[in-house]
Amino acid sequence: MKNALFAGTFDPFTIGHQDIVNRALPLFDKIIIAIGVNDEKKNVFSLEERLEIVKQAFNNHPNIKVDSYTGLTGEFCKKINAQFLIRGVRNTIDFQYESDLAQANKELFDLETLFFITSTTLSHVSSSLVKELYKNKGNYLKYLP
Amino acid sequence: MKNALFAGTFDPFTIGHQDIVNRALPLFDKIIIAIGVNDEKKNVFSLEERLEIVKQAFNNHPNIKVDSYTGLTGEFCKKINAQFLIRGVRNTIDFQYESDLAQANKELFDLETLFFITSTTLSHVSSSLVKELYKNKGNYLKYLP
Amino acid sequence: MKNALFAGTFDPFTIGHQDIVNRALPLFDKIIIAIGVNDEKKNVFSLEERLEIVKQAFNNHPNIKVDSYTGLTGEFCKKINAQFLIRGVRNTIDFQYESDLAQANKELFDLETLFFITSTTLSHVSSSLVKELYKNKGNYLKYLP
Amino acid sequence: MKNALFAGTFDPFTIGHQDIVNRALPLFDKIIIAIGVNDEKKNVFSLEERLEIVKQAFNNHPNIKVDSYTGLTGEFCKKINAQFLIRGVRNTIDFQYESDLAQANKELFDLETLFFITSTTLSHVSSSLVKELYKNKGNYLKYLP
Amino acid sequence: MKNALFAGTFDPFTIGHQDIVNRALPLFDKIIIAIGVNDEKKNVFSLEERLEIVKQAFNNHPNIKVDSYTGLTGEFCKKINAQFLIRGVRNTIDFQYESDLAQANKELFDLETLFFITSTTLSHVSSSLVKELYKNKGNYLKYLP
Amino acid sequence: MKNALFAGTFDPFTIGHQDIVNRALPLFDKIIIAIGVNDEKKNVFSLEERLEIVKQAFNNHPNIKVDSYTGLTGEFCKKINAQFLIRGVRNTIDFQYESDLAQANKELFDLETLFFITSTTLSHVSSSLVKELYKNKGNYLKYLP
Repeated sequence: MKNALFAGTFDPFTIGHQDIVNRALPLFDKIIIAIGVNDEKKNVFSLEERLEIVKQAFNNHPNIKVDSYTGLTGEFCKKINAQFLIRGVRNTIDFQYESDLAQANKELFDLETLFFITSTTLSHVSSSLVKELYKNKGNYLKYLP
Repeated sequence: MKNALFAGTFDPFTIGHQDIVNRALPLFDKIIIAIGVNDEKKNVFSLEERLEIVKQAFNNHPNIKVDSYTGLTGEFCKKINAQFLIRGVRNTIDFQYESDLAQANKELFDLETLFFITSTTLSHVSSSLVKELYKNKGNYLKYLP
Repeated sequence: MKNALFAGTFDPFTIGHQDIVNRALPLFDKIIIAIGVNDEKKNVFSLEERLEIVKQAFNNHPNIKVDSYTGLTGEFCKKINAQFLIRGVRNTIDFQYESDLAQANKELFDLETLFFITSTTLSHVSSSLVKELYKNKGNYLKYLP
Repeated sequence: MKNALFAGTFDPFTIGHQDIVNRALPLFDKIIIAIGVNDEKKNVFSLEERLEIVKQAFNNHPNIKVDSYTGLTGEFCKKINAQFLIRGVRNTIDFQYESDLAQANKELFDLETLFFITSTTLSHVSSSLVKELYKNKGNYLKYLP
Repeated sequence: MKNALFAGTFDPFTIGHQDIVNRALPLFDKIIIAIGVNDEKKNVFSLEERLEIVKQAFNNHPNIKVDSYTGLTGEFCKKINAQFLIRGVRNTIDFQYESDLAQANKELFDLETLFFITSTTLSHVSSSLVKELYKNKGNYLKYLP
Repeated sequence: MKNALFAGTFDPFTIGHQDIVNRALPLFDKIIIAIGVNDEKKNVFSLEERLEIVKQAFNNHPNIKVDSYTGLTGEFCKKINAQFLIRGVRNTIDFQYESDLAQANKELFDLETLFFITSTTLSHVSSSLVKELYKNKGNYLKYLP
C-alpha cells in the first residue's frame, strides 16, 4: 500500500489544493488529507468548516480520506502508515520553506516528500488570498472547491 | 504500469542524480533514465561514457532502463509510455527553470512532473561542478556514482 | 483621465515610497495615495500621523490626492475610478508577493498593476526598518520624506 | 507625447510579449517595438522573420511602430524620443536581471523602466521554449501571435 | 583588536549557529555572541535558558563572550567596540533579509557585515524548526549544541 | 598570516570588485587578487589589460598582491597559502551560485568563503554591464576603478 499524506492548516482548502490532490492521486493507493490543529494559530474558518470543505471537494472518493491531527506531521505519518508527503509549490518562497521542511522530515522520520508545481492558472491562489476576500466580503467562493 | 522518465544531458550523471532515482523508485514500476542528445551542445563526456556511467550506477536493476533519445522529451515519453517526469531540484534557480518546463510539458503533452528536493549533503553537487573538476584534474570521481 | 492608486499600510510612508510616486507621476493625470485601514493590524504610527506624513511629502501637489480606505483595494479602485495600481518592488521576495496580488487583482477586478523597481540607493529602506529605528530611538527621520 | 520602447531580441516574439504590449498600450501615445540586433548572437529566426511576426501581431495598429536597432538600448531611446522602457517579468530570475538593467538605464540615460508581470496563463511561455519546440518540430505556432 | 558581534534572538541557539561561530573564530580576536532582548516578541525559551545554551556550547572559550542587549544592534556594537557583524545565511530568503539589514547597518553605523553560508548538512536547521519540535515533544535536542 | 584570495575572471575588474576588496582589507594580512585564466572563455579584455586595471586600482598597496592562475581555485589557494576566499554577492542569483561553490570548496579543499554584500549604490554594476557598454561605445569607464 502506497499512502501519502497531504497535510496543512487549510484555512481554507482552495481549488489550488484540490488540483494538487487530483494530480497526485494516480500515484498512490490512498491519499490522506489532514488538517493540522495548532491551538496557537488563529484561524478564520473553524476546524469543522475546514473539514467540511475538504470532504465536499472529494465527495467520498474511495482513495481519499479526510482527517485532522495534532503534534508533529512526521509522527502522524507513522501512525497512519503514510510513507510519502505531498506538497504543492507555488513559487520560489514556497519552495525554500518546503525544502527545509522536507529535509527535516527526511532526517527525523525518514519520510520522502513529493512536490508538485501549481498549475499556471492557479499559481496566485492561496489561503491568504481567500481569507482576505472573505474578511472583506469579496468573491472568495471563486477559489473554493 | 506506472512509468517515469528521468531525462537529462547527464554530462555526467552524478551521485546527486543517483540519489533522486533511488528515492523515486518505490513509486514506480519502471524508471527510464534517458540521455537527451542535442547536437548543438558540446559535451565533455561522450554519449557512450555517459550511458556507461548511468548503467554502472544501477547495475542492471530490474526496474531501471537506460536509454538515449533525440527530439522533444514529451514526445519520447509518449513513445516509451511514461506518464510521469521526475526532476531533482537543488535550489530556487533550478526550481524556476523546472517550473516553466513542467508547465509546458503539462500543457503540450499532458505530462505530470514530480519534483524531489536534493538531499542536503548533495545540494552543491552538479554536473557543472564535476566538469570543472574533470577539466582541471581535480577529484571529480568523488561525485560520480 | 488616467488615474492610479498607490495603496499601502504606510506605517510609515518612507522616502522609498515617495521616490516611487515621483517616478510614476509623469504617466498619470492623478495618483491617489491611500492608506488601507485594517483593524487587525497593530500599527506604530496612528492613521492621522500616517496621513500627515504623506500629505507633507507632496505638499498639495495638484495631481496627488491622499486618502484612506477600508475593504478590498480592488473595490476602492472602482470607487475612485483608478484603472491602475502602482507598486514599488525592492527585491525578489517583494516581487513574488506582489506578483500574486497583481494576478488576483487582474482576475477579480480587471485592474492592471505597474511595477517600479526601487532606486539602488533606497533598496534597503522599508517601513519595517523605520519602525525598528523609531522604537529604539534611532535616527528614523533619515528615511522619512 | 508619451512614448515607450519595448526592446528585445524577440527570437521569436511570443504571445507573452504580445500580452505585455496590449496591457501597456493604454498608458502611452506610442509604443515602439524594436528588435536589438547583435551580431554575436546566433538567432534561430532571421531578423526579417522576427520583424514580420511582430508586424503581423499588431497589424498596423496606429499607436505601435515596429523597428530594429544596433547599439545601446538607452541611446536608441534618445534617438526615437522614448522616455520609458517597458519590460515583462515572468519570474524572480527575470526580475533580478531586469532590475540591474533598469538601474543602469536610470543611471546612464535617465530612463524610467515600467514592469508588467506576465499573465498567469502565459508565465511559462518564453522565446527559449518556442525555439526548442521549433527545432524539434513541436507545436511552436501555439505560442506565436 | 578585531571584534565581531554575532547577534540574534537565539530562541534557541542551534548547532547551525554554533557552526557559524566556529568558522568565524579564526578571523577575530574576540566574538561576542549577544541575545537581543525585545519585549514584544514572545519567546519559547527564557532569556536565562537561551544564555545558558550559548555558554555551554562554547564552554568558556577565551575568545568568546556571551551577552545580552536591548536597543539597536548597531549601537550595541559601538558600546562593545565591535567593528564587524557576523551573519549566517541559509538560503535566498535569509539572504534578501540580511542584505537589507547589512546595508542599513553600513549606512547608519558604518558597520561591516560578514556572511557565512551554512554548511550543507545544517542548511535546514533553524530556531523555528527546533521550537516546532520542542512544542510537539519531538527530538529537538538533536539540533542543540 | 591571514591571507585571502579574491579570484575571478575580472573581464573587467569593476568599482564593485574594488569596493569588496577595500571592505575586506581590514580583516587580512594580505589579499591576493587573482585572475583565473580559462582558455575556453572568450574575454573582451586581454589578460594583460585585466591585470593592469587591477594593479592601477590599488596602486602598489602593500597588503594587496595581483596575480593570475590556471586550474582549480582551491589548489591555487593551497599554493599561495590563502586560507580564505572572498566573494561579493550582488543578489539572490549570485548568492545561489556562490553558495554551491563555497560548499564545494569547503568539502574539497577545506577552504572558508567570506561573503560581502555589494554596496547599494553599486549593486547593479557587473562585468557584463561594463562589457556591454564597452562593445557599444558607451561610457564604460564610469564603472572602472
